[in-house]
Amino acid sequence: MAISADVKGQNRVIVERVVPELDGGRFYIKAVPGEIVEVEADIFCDGHDKTAARLLYKHQSDKKWQEAPLALINNDRWGGQFVVEKEGFYHYTLEAWIDHLASWQHEAILKIRDGQHVHVELLAGAQLLEKMAKRAAKEDKPAIQEAAKAFRSENRYDEAVLLAIDESFRTWSRKYPEIENATRYQELRVWVDRAKAGFSTWYSMFPRSAAREIGKHGTFNDVVALLPRIANMGFDVLYLPPIHPIGHKFRKGKNNNTVCQPDEPGVPYGIGSELGGHDAIHPDLGTLADFKALIAASKSQGIEIAMDLAIQCSPDHPWAKNHPEWFKIRPDGTIQYAENPPKKYQDIYPINFETEAWESLWEEMRRIILLWAEWGVRIIRVDNPHTKAFGFWEWVIAETKQKYPDMIFLAEAFTRPKVMQQLAKGGYAQSYTYYSWRNSKQELTEYLTELTQSEMKYYFRPNFWPNTHDINPPLLQTGHEPNYLIRFFMAATLSANYGLFGPTYEYMVSEVFPGKEEYLNSEKYEIKYWDWEHTNKLTHIITEVNRARRQNSALQQTNNLTFCNVDNDQMMAYLKIHANGNRILCVVNLDGYNKRSGVVQVPLHKIDKAGWEEYRVRDLITDAVYTWKGAYNFVELDPYFLPFHLFRIEDL
Amino acid sequence: MAISADVKGQNRVIVERVVPELDGGRFYIKAVPGEIVEVEADIFCDGHDKTAARLLYKHQSDKKWQEAPLALINNDRWGGQFVVEKEGFYHYTLEAWIDHLASWQHEAILKIRDGQHVHVELLAGAQLLEKMAKRAAKEDKPAIQEAAKAFRSENRYDEAVLLAIDESFRTWSRKYPEIENATRYQELRVWVDRAKAGFSTWYSMFPRSAAREIGKHGTFNDVVALLPRIANMGFDVLYLPPIHPIGHKFRKGKNNNTVCQPDEPGVPYGIGSELGGHDAIHPDLGTLADFKALIAASKSQGIEIAMDLAIQCSPDHPWAKNHPEWFKIRPDGTIQYAENPPKKYQDIYPINFETEAWESLWEEMRRIILLWAEWGVRIIRVDNPHTKAFGFWEWVIAETKQKYPDMIFLAEAFTRPKVMQQLAKGGYAQSYTYYSWRNSKQELTEYLTELTQSEMKYYFRPNFWPNTHDINPPLLQTGHEPNYLIRFFMAATLSANYGLFGPTYEYMVSEVFPGKEEYLNSEKYEIKYWDWEHTNKLTHIITEVNRARRQNSALQQTNNLTFCNVDNDQMMAYLKIHANGNRILCVVNLDGYNKRSGVVQVPLHKIDKAGWEEYRVRDLITDAVYTWKGAYNFVELDPYFLPFHLFRIEDL
Repeated sequence: MAISADVKGQNRVIVERVVPELDGGRFYIKAVPGEIVEVEADIFCDGHDKTAARLLYKHQSDKKWQEAPLALINNDRWGGQFVVEKEGFYHYTLEAWIDHLASWQHEAILKIRDGQHVHVELLAGAQLLEKMAKRAAKEDKPAIQEAAKAFRSENRYDEAVLLAIDESFRTWSRKYPEIENATRYQELRVWVDRAKAGFSTWYSMFPRSAAREIGKHGTFNDVVALLPRIANMGFDVLYLPPIHPIGHKFRKGKNNNTVCQPDEPGVPYGIGSELGGHDAIHPDLGTLADFKALIAASKSQGIEIAMDLAIQCSPDHPWAKNHPEWFKIRPDGTIQYAENPPKKYQDIYPINFETEAWESLWEEMRRIILLWAEWGVRIIRVDNPHTKAFGFWEWVIAETKQKYPDMIFLAEAFTRPKVMQQLAKGGYAQSYTYYSWRNSKQELTEYLTELTQSEMKYYFRPNFWPNTHDINPPLLQTGHEPNYLIRFFMAATLSANYGLFGPTYEYMVSEVFPGKEEYLNSEKYEIKYWDWEHTNKLTHIITEVNRARRQNSALQQTNNLTFCNVDNDQMMAYLKIHANGNRILCVVNLDGYNKRSGVVQVPLHKIDKAGWEEYRVRDLITDAVYTWKGAYNFVELDPYFLPFHLFRIEDL
Repeated sequence: MAISADVKGQNRVIVERVVPELDGGRFYIKAVPGEIVEVEADIFCDGHDKTAARLLYKHQSDKKWQEAPLALINNDRWGGQFVVEKEGFYHYTLEAWIDHLASWQHEAILKIRDGQHVHVELLAGAQLLEKMAKRAAKEDKPAIQEAAKAFRSENRYDEAVLLAIDESFRTWSRKYPEIENATRYQELRVWVDRAKAGFSTWYSMFPRSAAREIGKHGTFNDVVALLPRIANMGFDVLYLPPIHPIGHKFRKGKNNNTVCQPDEPGVPYGIGSELGGHDAIHPDLGTLADFKALIAASKSQGIEIAMDLAIQCSPDHPWAKNHPEWFKIRPDGTIQYAENPPKKYQDIYPINFETEAWESLWEEMRRIILLWAEWGVRIIRVDNPHTKAFGFWEWVIAETKQKYPDMIFLAEAFTRPKVMQQLAKGGYAQSYTYYSWRNSKQELTEYLTELTQSEMKYYFRPNFWPNTHDINPPLLQTGHEPNYLIRFFMAATLSANYGLFGPTYEYMVSEVFPGKEEYLNSEKYEIKYWDWEHTNKLTHIITEVNRARRQNSALQQTNNLTFCNVDNDQMMAYLKIHANGNRILCVVNLDGYNKRSGVVQVPLHKIDKAGWEEYRVRDLITDAVYTWKGAYNFVELDPYFLPFHLFRIEDL
């Protein structure tokens, strides 16, 4: 019947409902350097004493905790913040305790105001101050000791009473808290990615379509020649579908035809042949040296190469021969090919993540990723991560980050919400989203609110793609230029991370395979020839918007989004504000076919303006300048000119 | 670089966001016998396989887990339920795994429908069935083995194909799941209180006011004489303020006067004198034997005695002499008396829960409670628990329940929401609420929605008191009879637990101490003489409503509440439905001064009626019967007759 040794009987403060905290601390939240982490918690104690609390945080490489204040918001809710500066893990926690000096002063003041004689109270105060003097720094020690002396001296009563109600106590309490019987919360973690994880501009292309001659297989060297175009348009990530040897057995032809002509190049996702698998390079693209040269050339132009990790094999992949234990074996002894019944994908062997040999499988995957990292790759787009075990991703991403903390993984999962969320929690720095299918004002507002206001904002970094090589959504199937402008513009301004599959996008290739959302004559199955020199309105606007993204830090964050009312269901307006004062207001006409106008309601408290104040909105694309006043301002957008305004708000 | 031994590489299923789960399982939820515990969770796996899941639960005394099915609700959310039958702790958890047989059948059916030859698939099915046969019970084993045989035989292909699409697989999968690489959630707990914790009707009175002669100190024997009256009115808990010896030093007089006349009885909360403390009985009330006799007499009339635990002392309490270490000592060496600065309560010494001697303090409190339990007390109302440490309550309640699992603690905390919630989480079976100050339709709707729909429903059992000996709220200060009827009625029908401070309530004593919410000439400071034989409209209505509560199980639950629309801001309507079919509809006129009418909208799906169906509503107080039809029905309430309808909904 004895009291258990782990009961801390004198602890009176409760710390609860901490935000951010994912699944009880099971997963870390994410940030980028310079980001402010805002922490809130319920903090309270029994009775009427005053509570004090602080936020503790440190980088994983630090020994000592740093402190930030926590202050009462209301209703026992406390808040504070700290800034993460370095990449890697930060740890944070909260500590709360009874502030006996503040409790003492609060009661003493009430008694003094009531005209009570407080000599005994002053003696109690003296005891607290004498203890505090021991903790105090040199510069404050004499004043604290002197106050204690005055409290003890009956002759100095009047002076002591004045001292007792002095503000300086609050400062002293903060500087030299008596942290006894404190309640300390469990340690939580923030993973700080490098800046690119939070702000990136992706261009995706098939390198085999980079050749300058019709019918020729493009090479890495051809891609090098395209880098100035890509850099000039403002992209800083160049993502290439798999660059490995392609299998022969059941190779697919044009438009996913099961019959393949001898000269057809196959699907880059049919990875592996007698020339090697995920650790080999397709010889028609070039050598490993060529690939490394591409990485280097890209870097010199401010572009990073992103590789594509598709954990699957062609039947010719070395794994199929050397590691049959990683696959499902059919009762007839053959390896189980991919299926989406009744459809069969006999050119692809999926991996069996339930294999007894999961350890060697996981280790091989780690080996591949670390090998790519050695080549110089620091961004990996993962193909269909949702068809591989969650636990595997959590492990392999953590293992990779131990050696390459600057590695960024993008999850290409288009599936059910909770599955996508779980992958992000497991360590993906960025995730594809439903953006491609969110078109109406209500759909976009709801989806962006979920991404930027719900718990997802702490761990799920969206990367918006109006199209991909797999997705040609209905609005783009129209081939209508304003639609391309609208869908691009919203991707680039709603989300700090976005990407385009080009040059299909900017050249507005729109034809769709009948009955599908896939492109007709998709580059997945064939080599394309493009006139890479061609420019048009889209290439121009993309270039300008990307320039504005680089020059305006408000566009480099995603969760700093506020929707503004517009009295027109076909128009959207949203504000993005950076802590440094940069304020961007986007207004979009969602109707690509008709001129639309409406009154935009700017939330003035967000832009720090009074109702009578004038301010300037400058269109960063057209350089048009308007003087606005107060909250309500008229906007008209003609989609055939430009279906949006990209305004910077400027003081007059 | 080896994979950690605690990584379960083959586990593919995620179980998350379990409800109910309080603070990550830190606290238990609460129920009463017969209650249904509904459990939900996000359950999903990677890829396209089918997931299966079950709910596991067991009473603390059971060795074996019991199972209940979990079924998909939507969007990867699963739900199931179990019923708690016995008092004490139940443990529950969730287990989820890949259902390979279901996944196999799903794909097989798609291929069969597509006209594919599925011999190899049937062989794979045979393997699964052969494994299943080993787990199967005698009655199913032959059928399963026979199916496997058919699958393996090329001669029986057509028969096998028919078998493969058969429903029986679903039954077999459920009965003999192949639970491999399952994900099992952490164990959570439900504490099952005895029924009284969920449904109780409290009467509170000062026993010293029970005498039948003016000026005489009432005794336990006098209370025995009142039991028929209390039982007849339908109360089943009789709560008495402290019954211990009262201190002399600084004893308070009438109306909290600091000057006390020699013949004044003092405040029962000034506990302890030379005659003893919390383990002694006030001699003017009787002996311990008398008190035990009261407990026994009450029991025979269906009433339980609730004692009052106020952890504080008069300066004459034995603790003050024997355990000065449990108190704060002022710098002048005296014990710190209670204060609410600038007010002083020199007749009360609060306990210092930060004392170094907290262990002996806690043990003494446990001794007192267990002693009371030995006397036969099983309900304790705790005075101001929010001024004592949360950790202490959690410990002492758990300790008490180990020996007396039928002990019910009621928290008399009127303070900030999170403090009240924390006490409930710590183990209080019931809690006082803000009901006394929630008057308008909006206030009541919001507050009841929070209590019955938020997470609070799992751990915070409200006990509604229109008044207490400390609280005479504004609406009752009017002395207006309809107001007393309204406030009583809503307490008794919104919450399954409610109480009245009587006979002040039923005799409508309304005078207030000027500027306060306290009663003038409060019984806390003086002995009252009451004409206990007096009856009036209120005593009649209280009796009738309490009878209806006993006869209608829908009124014996709190969280079964649904508000109904009424097109009148002064009228409220709410439905309470029990799983056994009992349906109660309450309609209240909140305006005690004017007749009000409105159209009540009954949510027909809740009462299982179609729009064209007629049904009967029977007023259980007046026995008036109305035939209603569809959702919208007219109600008029005259507060001077009765400001409410207590309808039972009956089928025609």
